[in-house]
Formats: sequence, structure tokens, C-alpha cells
Amino acid sequence: MHSPEELRRLVDEALGRLELWPELHGQATSVRYSLQVGGKRVRPVLSLAVGEALGAPVAQVMPAALAVELVHTFSLVHDDLPAMDGDEERRGHPSTWKKFGEGVAVLAGDALVAEAFRLAARYESSAVARELAEATLGMIGGQYLDTMVEGYDLAAVHRLKTGRLFSASVTTALWAAGLPETEQGPWRAFAEELGLLFQIVDDILDEDGYVREHGAAAARRYADEAAERARARLAGIPAQTAVLREIVDGLAVRTA
Amino acid sequence: MHSPEELRRLVDEALGRLELWPELHGQATSVRYSLQVGGKRVRPVLSLAVGEALGAPVAQVMPAALAVELVHTFSLVHDDLPAMDGDEERRGHPSTWKKFGEGVAVLAGDALVAEAFRLAARYESSAVARELAEATLGMIGGQYLDTMVEGYDLAAVHRLKTGRLFSASVTTALWAAGLPETEQGPWRAFAEELGLLFQIVDDILDEDGYVREHGAAAARRYADEAAERARARLAGIPAQTAVLREIVDGLAVRTA
Repeated sequence: MHSPEELRRLVDEALGRLELWPELHGQATSVRYSLQVGGKRVRPVLSLAVGEALGAPVAQVMPAALAVELVHTFSLVHDDLPAMDGDEERRGHPSTWKKFGEGVAVLAGDALVAEAFRLAARYESSAVARELAEATLGMIGGQYLDTMVEGYDLAAVHRLKTGRLFSASVTTALWAAGLPETEQGPWRAFAEELGLLFQIVDDILDEDGYVREHGAAAARRYADEAAERARARLAGIPAQTAVLREIVDGLAVRTA
Repeated sequence: MHSPEELRRLVDEALGRLELWPELHGQATSVRYSLQVGGKRVRPVLSLAVGEALGAPVAQVMPAALAVELVHTFSLVHDDLPAMDGDEERRGHPSTWKKFGEGVAVLAGDALVAEAFRLAARYESSAVARELAEATLGMIGGQYLDTMVEGYDLAAVHRLKTGRLFSASVTTALWAAGLPETEQGPWRAFAEELGLLFQIVDDILDEDGYVREHGAAAARRYADEAAERARARLAGIPAQTAVLREIVDGLAVRTA
């Protein structure tokens, strides 16, 4: 079993080694830039930890873990576009469109999605790809509601934008680790609570969503309750969940 | 066996019935608009014809056929964006960004890709998704070379932009129809010639690519030679290829 910090190093190594499809030609440069300006890699680390809890080697779950990270990165690249949020910076670096221009940034996001599904399709079964496609569509729906619709329920929007793909880090890893569907129920309940926890803490850090709807104190209480439910779900799962427990605890108190 | 015209009607019916992922919420409107402003459906018709030639029912190959059409539509929606080609019209209707705004159009393209992979993931095996992901990446690389790089070999650019996904209409259908990889060789050679034929005729109609590089007469000769090779490949395949032969003949003389 690897610690979260060790898993993160493995993810960064695998991203550095990731071979992009040769027909991308020069478009690969902006894809690689978008992937390498950092990030906490919290989603792929979670995927690998789920895999290890189920006894699956890191190498077996890595394609699914990277696929989720690529979809996450795609969403940042497109959300940063002038036609969307218009952010010029991302993690202290120029955002992809600011560095390469809007056209290349649109294509970089497109290529990240396609590479994500190429990774998901490394598994013989299409289950990882299906799970990822559904989460990606949920996230896109959330971005639509967030940027194009006034007054939509913020918690629902953030569940789609943030919680949806976060939960998919768990659920794609279940398929990648080869857990039969009949045994996935408790894990999916855990994934749901973890997505909610991640989303509420995000809102607390951004003073958005739950905080704007219910106030800071209530948001903090909701986060603690979601963490507590996630721990309870985890405790009921017959697997090696110590590292996952550590990840839950870290997510509940994270400050960035 | 259905005629190309019958297959086209079946494709249009299936597109009309296609259920988009409910979490897309209002984003679904622009996705549906992009899919329904028409198009000749030549790629999905080709996929279904390949399936029928191999004895696979239409319903079995339809998800793969629609997936290719969705990827094609995604590429049109994003290529039309002001940051790319800036086209305000598409088939006599406002382009997606012109009708819904740039942000929604970016998300519409994204949703079309994700829906395409959700369709590809309806098959138990991930082979359709893998084949589609590779073709999508080739197409994105072609669009990059076309819009961002000066003086790149036009024929190579158009092979990626146009021929690549067209060939994939055949190769994804092989997997969807359940043809073992060991028997796909002759079909893949046919797909390659057909992609080239489609691309050269595209260049003839647009007075671009091959025509600009070699002149109109040479381009016409190349197209006829590609059609002849496609027919020869087809003749060597032990399957019910009469409808496919009709499609090849139609592609060679098409005027739109």
C-alpha cells in the first residue's frame, strides 16, 4: 500500500511518461502544457487508493486514474476560455488560451477528452469509458448551468461541476480494479458522500455555493457531516481502506 | 439489405430518438440543434452498410454509426467557432455559436464528444471507443495543422481532417459487427482507400488540397484511381458488398 504522497508521485511520473497520439502533431505541445502546470492530482490519487484498497496493482488502475485527470484538465482548459470564465491564469501560470491562443486551447481541451477516452479504452471492457462519459456529461451540464443560467440552485450546479467527476474517480477505479457490479453498491454510496464533501469544502474555500446559500457555519457543518458519513460508509466496506480513510480526513480539513 | 437511402432514413430516425444524458440539462438544446440542422449522414450510412455486408443487423451497428456522426458534428461545431474558422452559417442555418453564443457552442462540441463515447461504450468491448478515440485525435491534429501551421503539406492535413474519421466509419463498424481483428485487414485497406477517395473529392469540390497542389485534372485522376482501388479491395472481400459498391460509386461522382 502506498501513501497518498507516494501515489501522487506515481501519478506525476505516469503523466510525464504519457504518450500522446502521434497524429496530434504540434497540438500535443499545448496538451502537455495544460497537464503539466501542476495540480494536486487529488482525483487520480483517489482512484489509485481505491484500486489498492481492492488489491489491484497501481499499474492496473493507472489508465483510469489518468483518464479522470485528463477530463478534469480538459474542463479547466475550456472553462478558462474568454467565452466562458475568461481566466488568464491557472495555478500561477498563463492559462492555456492565454499562452497558445483561443483556437489552440479549444483543440487542447478536445484532445484531452479524446486522450482520456483512449486511456479508458485500454481496458477490455467499456465500463470505464461509460462511467467516464456519464460523469463528463454531468460536468458539462453543470458548467452550462453555472455560466449560462441565472439563479439555478447553486448546490445542484456545484454537485455537477465538482462533485460529479470527483465521485467518478472512485467509480471508474472500481471497474478498473475488476470489482463486479453486484459488489459496487457500498463503494458508490461512499463515492457520493466523498463528492459532496469535496464540493462543500470547495465552496467553503471559494466562499461560494453552499456558503452563499446557507452561510459559512452551516457549510462547515454540512462538510463535517458529509465527512462523517463518508467514514461510516468506508468502515462498512470489507477492504484495505486505511489510506482512503486518510484521504477522507485530508479532504475534510484541506485549505487549498 | 437496405439501400443507402433507406439507411439514411434509419440514421435520421435514430438521431431524432437519441436520448441525451439527462444531466446535460439545458445544454442539450444546442446539442440537438447541431445534430438536426441536417447533413448527408454519409459516415453513419457507410457504417451501417459495412455492418449489413457482414450480416450484422442495423440495430447492432447503430450506436457505433451514431458515435461517428456525433464526432463529425462536434468537429463542425468547434471548427466554426470565431477562434477557429469563424463560420456564421452551416448548411444554410446559423452555426451553433452564432445561434447560441460561443460558450454554449464550446460546451455543445464537448457534449457531442462525450455522448459519442457514451454510445461507443454501449458495446461490451472497448474496441469501438478506442478506434473512435484514435480517429478523433487524428482529426484534431489535422485541424491544428490546417488552422495554426502555415505551409504544411495540404494532402496530409486533409487526410487527417477528412479522411481519418471517414475511414473510421468503416473500422468502428467492423468491431461493432463483431468481426475478429484477424479478419479486418482487407476491410482496413478498403477503409483507407475510401477515406482517400472522400478526401480528394472534397478537395475537388472545395478547389482545395489536392487541387491546389496538383491541379484539377490530376486531382480528378487521383480520385478515380482511389475509387478503382476501393472497388478492387471490396471485390476481394468475401461479404455482401453490393450496397458498399454502390456507395463507392456515389462517392466518386458526388457533387456536394
